[in-house]
Amino acid sequence: MGIKRHGTTRRYSDFVVHNSTVYVVEVPASLEADVATQTREVLTSLEHYLKEAGSDRSRILMANIFLTDMSDYDAMNAVWDAWVPEGSAPARACVQVAGLAKPGWRVEIALTAAVK
Amino acid sequence: MGIKRHGTTRRYSDFVVHNSTVYVVEVPASLEADVATQTREVLTSLEHYLKEAGSDRSRILMANIFLTDMSDYDAMNAVWDAWVPEGSAPARACVQVAGLAKPGWRVEIALTAAVK
Amino acid sequence: MGIKRHGTTRRYSDFVVHNSTVYVVEVPASLEADVATQTREVLTSLEHYLKEAGSDRSRILMANIFLTDMSDYDAMNAVWDAWVPEGSAPARACVQVAGLAKPGWRVEIALTAAVK
Repeated sequence: MGIKRHGTTRRYSDFVVHNSTVYVVEVPASLEADVATQTREVLTSLEHYLKEAGSDRSRILMANIFLTDMSDYDAMNAVWDAWVPEGSAPARACVQVAGLAKPGWRVEIALTAAVK
Repeated sequence: MGIKRHGTTRRYSDFVVHNSTVYVVEVPASLEADVATQTREVLTSLEHYLKEAGSDRSRILMANIFLTDMSDYDAMNAVWDAWVPEGSAPARACVQVAGLAKPGWRVEIALTAAVK
Repeated sequence: MGIKRHGTTRRYSDFVVHNSTVYVVEVPASLEADVATQTREVLTSLEHYLKEAGSDRSRILMANIFLTDMSDYDAMNAVWDAWVPEGSAPARACVQVAGLAKPGWRVEIALTAAVK
């Protein structure tokens, strides 16, 4: 079964498709913005990748949300809840980590989604 | 390929099935209990969802266990080891996070499992 | 669809294969070594398991990298970047956790990969 990679560097790919499933991870574009802005940046980018992969935000199977501060939970959720199409929410784990790769990042999201 | 969701809210689904695989995440029912009690609560609920999805605890492929205190490791494992059918243990990552969505939660578990 | 487990204990399996996909997690062999050494240990072991499973390091779909100290990021990446075959990098999440199961461990890596 084939593997399709997109945006591949030495370190990571923007997304990878195999067996009707796409794996995609995103971090914020900005380093100083609040969590609502960063969550919007991450979800906008993820949506773009999902479409490129032949999926979309109604076909997400599993989400892993990593926050650096759980006091951002409600603000992140407000953006998330509005972004996920009604009736299409994935299984979701959400944890506070001790840090992300860049100090200003407040959220990182990994998705597994179904490809059409 | 179809997607089956169960217990879907605006934010998450209790579980999602696609391509013979189920994705499911659970947190404790109680906020004040010790980690053994919370692990039992989580695993009992996960077992219920696995059955609903057409899987069971002998068909788990991957587990991500998030603890808020690694000193809970042995007590969590005692419950886990007794719950997993002999010969059926999944690949498993276990890390201590900086926090979970509710302050009293000591464990969150995400599973990927095979559907029959 | 069948499930193949390898190195199964009461607690975990070294890897599990289902539906053309392998799930594998590894921690360091050493407790006192620096992150470069521990990353090499982890990747060497993962490579062995991937081959046993009928996959290899050019077929990784998703990586979850857990570090205990984000100041290890560059040293871990130097080993990672050299290990991943050019053009084959997976989707990748990398977070700093509050701790791993043994105090001396600095890195834990979970992979999802395609089986040939």
